[in-house]
Amino acid sequence: MSLLGIDLGGTKVAFAIFSKEGELLQKDTYLLGKRRGNAVGNLMTETTAALIDSQKSAGDPVESIGVSVPGISHSKTGTVWAPNIKGWEDYPLLEELLKVASFIPVKIDSDRACSILGELWQGNARGCLDAIFLTVGTGIGAGILANGEILRGNMDIAGAIGWMGFSRPYQEKYSACGCFEYYASGAGIARNAEIYRGLDKDYRGELSAIETGSMSAQDVFAAYDNGDKVAIKTVSQCIGYWGMAAANLVSLFNPEKIIFGGGIFGPATRFLPEIKSEAEKWGQPVSMKHVSFETSALLGDAAVFGAGCLALRNAKDKRYPPGRVSLAGK
Amino acid sequence: MSLLGIDLGGTKVAFAIFSKEGELLQKDTYLLGKRRGNAVGNLMTETTAALIDSQKSAGDPVESIGVSVPGISHSKTGTVWAPNIKGWEDYPLLEELLKVASFIPVKIDSDRACSILGELWQGNARGCLDAIFLTVGTGIGAGILANGEILRGNMDIAGAIGWMGFSRPYQEKYSACGCFEYYASGAGIARNAEIYRGLDKDYRGELSAIETGSMSAQDVFAAYDNGDKVAIKTVSQCIGYWGMAAANLVSLFNPEKIIFGGGIFGPATRFLPEIKSEAEKWGQPVSMKHVSFETSALLGDAAVFGAGCLALRNAKDKRYPPGRVSLAGK
Repeated sequence: MSLLGIDLGGTKVAFAIFSKEGELLQKDTYLLGKRRGNAVGNLMTETTAALIDSQKSAGDPVESIGVSVPGISHSKTGTVWAPNIKGWEDYPLLEELLKVASFIPVKIDSDRACSILGELWQGNARGCLDAIFLTVGTGIGAGILANGEILRGNMDIAGAIGWMGFSRPYQEKYSACGCFEYYASGAGIARNAEIYRGLDKDYRGELSAIETGSMSAQDVFAAYDNGDKVAIKTVSQCIGYWGMAAANLVSLFNPEKIIFGGGIFGPATRFLPEIKSEAEKWGQPVSMKHVSFETSALLGDAAVFGAGCLALRNAKDKRYPPGRVSLAGK
Repeated sequence: MSLLGIDLGGTKVAFAIFSKEGELLQKDTYLLGKRRGNAVGNLMTETTAALIDSQKSAGDPVESIGVSVPGISHSKTGTVWAPNIKGWEDYPLLEELLKVASFIPVKIDSDRACSILGELWQGNARGCLDAIFLTVGTGIGAGILANGEILRGNMDIAGAIGWMGFSRPYQEKYSACGCFEYYASGAGIARNAEIYRGLDKDYRGELSAIETGSMSAQDVFAAYDNGDKVAIKTVSQCIGYWGMAAANLVSLFNPEKIIFGGGIFGPATRFLPEIKSEAEKWGQPVSMKHVSFETSALLGDAAVFGAGCLALRNAKDKRYPPGRVSLAGK
């Protein structure tokens, strides 16, 4: 018996077959291309149906399906809000997948939740009851494991740490994505570097050649490696923000581990000791002494492993045996 | 059958008898006076033994005991760290109470946890699965209910929101109690008012008569009522901090309610609408739209009701039937 984990991203979708022991047996990735709305749903249901068939033929049938989505998974309705996929304001993904899954149970959760579940299952959070996955990429989010359970909140939007405020007074520019994300996401790093370059009239470094609005976080890290002063200022600032935000998580949740992931960790992995030092200034001292800061063991695969773990937990969960998955309003 | 809830504070201890339906039948409060260490423990065990006897004689025996403590309740060892009670660095409270409780189960938790449990049982969090009690008094802490369970963390120190950082760069003055508590606790309000009064050379208001180091938050609120400019500046600043911190809780936990309590709410209750407005600037917009900000329904009794609720939950909890409560190392 095998598990199917599906990781839907903003530009691609990955389908992975796992053994129940957590071994990744097969992974196929499809670019979404110009697909939107139902076309994305169709790609997912058709590929799922094909995988169910092929696993059955191979004598290793799919026992349970888990899905990671880039946005909010509404646990009460089975619908999904995914801001980067057109037409997915309230997409009935559970309903669609159950049509092809038949009696195989399906469980959907956010990529935040799946990332920490992936690390819990096969990565750096193995054995933890309290751990947090802090994703820093284009945006910022947190997947929170508290006492062995994923923290969901009242409307499935817990972990929206990109909205953490810390730079008073409030400025209107925070309104689109939140204060922490504005300053310390991948997009924030690029934006800050542009601002610092503009403030330094004598600056003639390598970032000065980049056209306004087209700086990337990668450009900043590359310039940092060459000792560029604007890049150093930008990155130092971010280390301060990441450290303080991580300390706030430690004070509130008293976790065993904070796991840094997403596209920026990655290149910012080397700064983990400085981030920890910064956090130690701010956080509850006993909690800080007993937390470890690590990066993702699974990198870009954290969410697909988490989808596999979701499938495993749901298969085992006697409260929701196959065939008893119900949809709100049905 | 009745429940015994005990609320130990820094200066007094309250013993309350509740019906299982949550009715407060009797409450006795004892000042700690000069008691420290074992003497505090003895007061608790002797009074507990006497109440067990008298309830038995009255035909309404105590079925379960819950205790709220002002500090950290170590769930694995049954010991308590209470910074305001001398000799309670690691006090074996569970062991002591079990000696007199015999086969009656005993459960201990922090006053943070008990405050939200009290509101859940008989206050403003009734029916909630996700709610937070933000205590603002001499210090600041948070009792967090997530998916119906108290958030404990890895070492029982979750909810230490007084350590939340938000005013970069770090300053050494935050090291004793944390940044948020430094600025926005009762002690912080008094300290800020002294600072603002010192900065304004022309100030001749009512707070100028108070000796340095002896300002209280009560003085500041009284001066606020008379339109004093230093008091207004101090309180406005605090509204900003409380609003931003509450928004951070909303973004991270997506709760149904934030309940403000402690000595400052109290006099700051009137500012709840301004605190909400401030929070709305910062927090995750959907979560902010669906959260309600309220003050404690139980006021100074929140923790003792929470101790009663702890007793009730423990009595019902089949994982820990009477007589099977075990102590680490025994």
